[in-house]
This record gives sequence, C-alpha cells and structure tokens, in this order.
Amino acid sequence: MDAYKKAGVDITAGYRLVDALKELTQNDALGSFGGMFPLELGTYDEPVLVAGTDGVGTKLLVAAQAKQNAQVGVDLVAMCVNDILAQGAKPLFFLDYLGTGHLEEKKATEILRGIVAGVKEAGAVLLGGETAEMPDMYEHGRYDLAGFAVGIADKKKLLTAQNTKEGDVLLGLAANGLHSNGFSLVRDILFKQNGFSLDEVLPGCQTDLRHELLKPTRIYVKSVYPLVEAGLVHAIAHITGGGLVENVARILPDGLAAEIDLAAWQVPAIMQDLQKLGQLSFADMTQTFNLGLGLVVAVDPSMAAEVKGQLEQAGERVYQVGRVMPGSKQVKIRGEL
Amino acid sequence: MDAYKKAGVDITAGYRLVDALKELTQNDALGSFGGMFPLELGTYDEPVLVAGTDGVGTKLLVAAQAKQNAQVGVDLVAMCVNDILAQGAKPLFFLDYLGTGHLEEKKATEILRGIVAGVKEAGAVLLGGETAEMPDMYEHGRYDLAGFAVGIADKKKLLTAQNTKEGDVLLGLAANGLHSNGFSLVRDILFKQNGFSLDEVLPGCQTDLRHELLKPTRIYVKSVYPLVEAGLVHAIAHITGGGLVENVARILPDGLAAEIDLAAWQVPAIMQDLQKLGQLSFADMTQTFNLGLGLVVAVDPSMAAEVKGQLEQAGERVYQVGRVMPGSKQVKIRGEL
Repeated sequence: MDAYKKAGVDITAGYRLVDALKELTQNDALGSFGGMFPLELGTYDEPVLVAGTDGVGTKLLVAAQAKQNAQVGVDLVAMCVNDILAQGAKPLFFLDYLGTGHLEEKKATEILRGIVAGVKEAGAVLLGGETAEMPDMYEHGRYDLAGFAVGIADKKKLLTAQNTKEGDVLLGLAANGLHSNGFSLVRDILFKQNGFSLDEVLPGCQTDLRHELLKPTRIYVKSVYPLVEAGLVHAIAHITGGGLVENVARILPDGLAAEIDLAAWQVPAIMQDLQKLGQLSFADMTQTFNLGLGLVVAVDPSMAAEVKGQLEQAGERVYQVGRVMPGSKQVKIRGEL
Repeated sequence: MDAYKKAGVDITAGYRLVDALKELTQNDALGSFGGMFPLELGTYDEPVLVAGTDGVGTKLLVAAQAKQNAQVGVDLVAMCVNDILAQGAKPLFFLDYLGTGHLEEKKATEILRGIVAGVKEAGAVLLGGETAEMPDMYEHGRYDLAGFAVGIADKKKLLTAQNTKEGDVLLGLAANGLHSNGFSLVRDILFKQNGFSLDEVLPGCQTDLRHELLKPTRIYVKSVYPLVEAGLVHAIAHITGGGLVENVARILPDGLAAEIDLAAWQVPAIMQDLQKLGQLSFADMTQTFNLGLGLVVAVDPSMAAEVKGQLEQAGERVYQVGRVMPGSKQVKIRGEL
C-alpha cells in the first residue's frame, strides 16, 4: 500500500482510529460494513422511524482555530437528536461522517470523544461512522462533520404543527450560548470586521471568545422526551438555522400565529454584543440566532406550570415566553433587542 | 437577513433547493425537522435495523473538474446501500449531507438528481437531507457529500462472516469501472505524475477519462436482495476502500481463507493502465481497486449455478472467481496483473 500512502491516504491510520473508537464506545461491531440495531417493538402500535441529518457549520472553523475539537462532536449529535426529539421521537442511534484532507489521529479522536459523549447524553447508541481522508479536498487542518440520527415514535404520538392549538403556552428552554447556528455571520462580525482574537472577553460575557463561542449545543433529550412520552407537549421547535422566527413558525398550523415577548427572558450577552458590533437589524437577530432559547415547546395552558416544573426538575432553565393565537403563521416578537 | 447573506450564506437559496427537491422526489414532507418512515413489521420475527454512512471521496474532485455532478450522487447512494445489502438487509431510506462553500443551485440540483436516481434504483426512499453553505470552509467550486442509509433485516437472515462455509464458491459481480475508491491514487497517477487531461482516452478504454473515471458505482440491490431474501447467499463483500483483498477478508470467519483466480475475469483496462503508469505493485492493486468486481458473494457450491443464473437474468455479469478453504483469513489472489 505504499503508492496509496504516498498519494496522501494512510489507510492504516484509519484502521487505528476504528480501534480507538471501539475502545471509547466498547462496541466491537464498529468497522463492519454497517451498524446493526435490534428493534424492540412491543410498546409501539404503529412504529415510525424518524431520521435527520445535520452538520455543525462554520463553528468548525472556530474549533479548528481554537484547537478545541471535542465540543463540536457534541454539537454534531445535538443538532441531529434535538431535531428527532422535535418530531416526538426517541433517538435510537447515531452515525457520523468526518471528512478531512489529512487524517490527524489525535484531532479525530478528540472529535469522536465529543461525539461519543453527545450520543451518551442523548441516550442513544453510536452505530457507525466514516472517516474519509481526502487529499486536496480540504485545506490543511480543515475538516467537515455530518451526523445522522434515527429515532422511533408511535405514529399517534408524533409531534406535528397540527398538534399546536390556539391558546397554547410557549415555553422556552435556555440555550447554551449560540449553539451551532449563525457562525458565518459571527465570524464575519468578530474576526473579519472587528479583528478580535479568541482570547478576548466581550462585554457581559463570563468567558473569552474561545470558550463563549465553542459552548456545545445543549442536548434536550433526557429532560424533554419523558414529557413527550407522557403526552404533555403539543409541539417542539428546535431553534436552529433561521433563528427563533423561522423555527417557531414550523410548529404553527394554518390559522394560528405565535407571539413571543422578549421581556420574558434575558438574551445572552454574546448575542447583544454581536448585534452592536455588526449593527444587526431586528430581523437579522431574530432570523439568525436562538436569542437564548434552544427549544420552544407548545403546551396546553392547563399543563404549562406542570411541564415547566418537570423540566426544571430535570435541570432545564425554562421561561414562559409566549402564546399561540389566531393568525396566519406569523411569529411576532414583541419588545426590543 | 441582509447581514447573513453578506456574510456568505444565502438561506433563501437553500429554501429554493428544498422546493426543487420536493419536485424531484414528489415528497412534500422534505424540509421538516426530520424525515419519517413508517415501519411495516408483519414479515419480521426479530427486526434489526442496519445503518451505514459513506462518502464518495476525491472522485468528487474529478466530478467538479469535469463539471459532471449527477453521477457522484449515484455513487453516494451506491456506497451506502451496497454496504447495507452486504449485511443482508433491504435498504429502506436514505439521507444526504452536502457541504459546500457557496451554494450553487444548479450544481446542487444536479447532485440531488443523481441522489434521487440512485435511491430509486435501490428501491429506497429519500427521507431528508442537509445542504450546508459554509463560507471559508471549502475552496471555490468544492463540495463534500455524505450519505446515510438505513435498511432492515430479520435477525436470522443477517449475513455475517460466520455464514461463510468451507467449500463455498465465490461469485464476482462485474463493477462499473473504478466505482468510488482509490481516487486519490488515481488522480495522483493520471493528473499529477502524468499530466493527462480529462479528454484523453487511455489504451484499451472505450471512452475518455472524463467518462471512464466518472462511471457511477453500480447499485446491486435489485438483483441481489431477492437472493438474500430467499436464503441463497452465505455472505456478501462490497468491494470498496481496501480493495478486493481487504473486503473479501471481511466475510471470512476464523479458520477459513479465500482463493481468487485472476484468470476468471478480465481486469478493466483503466486499472491495467493505472498499474503501468503508476508502476503499482501487486499489493497496491489488490488492496486499492475492485479489479472489476463490485461485489463478491459466497454461495454454497450446490447453489452456485442457480445463483449465477438468477443474477445474470437480473442483468448482472457474474464470474465464478474463487473458493473458500481452510486457512487463517488470508485472501490469496492467484495469477498475474
């Protein structure tokens, strides 16, 4: 295999990585042609698989620059399993794809360590993955990540926009910072327009940009899925690309609108800083960032206090942020940024 | 959303792409938080999900150079569903991830057209996908693809190395060219070492390099899965990264070895040309390329003629290429290259 290695592909490094991963996950079956997941179907009347794929976006560039690559592994899992959760499904298993120009084993192991931690946090199983070494495809030190998650739900418990009812209360679950969205804009404002370094601490922030920007996306499965299973939530919006406005709109059926009151919670300092530095409009802000809410959950008003209490007991910070009312799918954000 | 667009992310272009995809697939549910797949379980005693992820490797760089992007969409699906098939599972659904620096809608639609065609060829469903526009992440015109397939099998019909028996006949199913492996080496030899252009026709090849290199990976599901379902095959090796040697080794249990006779079929001209041009060793050749066989199937000798006949009727070119015998997992390739 000398010729292939000379051409830039070290297939034995790939094999060593599989070994490291087997050790991390205690799953010896990794590395076979495909991962296997036995289905236990006793409790489902009409089982439906729910699958989603996502990446981490250009937060990866910040991670590479900061030489901190474990958090984005958590991000990758979070982006996928929170999407599955938003459909009312329980995440079962996850697979990852890592594309890079030159396989750096230490860095790859770090990323995989984050993925393994995220998958565990989501109560799922890492079923397999692909590490692709592609000379000339990525610049030095660069890599891309794609994640795939599969979950299961009983058909009648799937959460769709049709479940959302007039009068529903909207509960917002605190995000852990920016999560994995808007990073092309973030990098543009901080690094290109304003020339900040990762060591700087922006006004109101507790940590430097290295730590502030790389906070991993919160995984809401363990706290929220029990409420889904108990039928206590109507719909869930995972606040990702498109920000608060676009994603809350996705849980509104025809004939309903949402009103969200910015006074109900504190928009994180980092986002306020970005607004000032980048002179971002209200629309830019509400359609790009999560504004501090990683998940917005629609619940029956009679159950709002109960759901809020249970989520808080499970470790979430929860705010009653708005209401569902008659309208045509608008998401009105009241208040000022 | 002006600020985000100025930072290099055109979120409306992404929305338009989802619309194009809905039209291509006639699946209106695309674009929701995750794709849903109803499970029909009547026929399974112990259903097992089998999932796999893969990419296309640096064949993507050839596609970009040739401005032909539909074939690699087929490759992406093929790499994943053939892996699922190799485990004895029937592919159910597929998701794709497309990462790029700047979203070119025409190119992305072309890629997705290939993916849709591949998924259809595999008898599966395109359940969702992610198109990530990441400024500064990829060089101009570059993109990466990751695919993810999920299939189902009854536990007792899963194909593992343990099914392979002493005396089994190895049938080789013709590949459609290089498929999606070894392309870093291929590009190194053809373009870096020898300065060929895509318009040149190598000795023995029927078409120029543009067409020869970009032939899409063959999807074997429709011809091979019926035989798996009927219990007519013991094990399947999908010949991908690691070539004929490494992949056939994966279907050998402890105590058995394989012997393959190169005289049983014609190694494609393009691979012979690459060997000469790159002065590749026998090990380089057998551990990198498929040598013309996309799938190697182990069958009971009493069923070999029957299986070969059925595969040929289903449109495959099939060669009896070797045997399984006592040994310690070696794959001996007899003959000369």
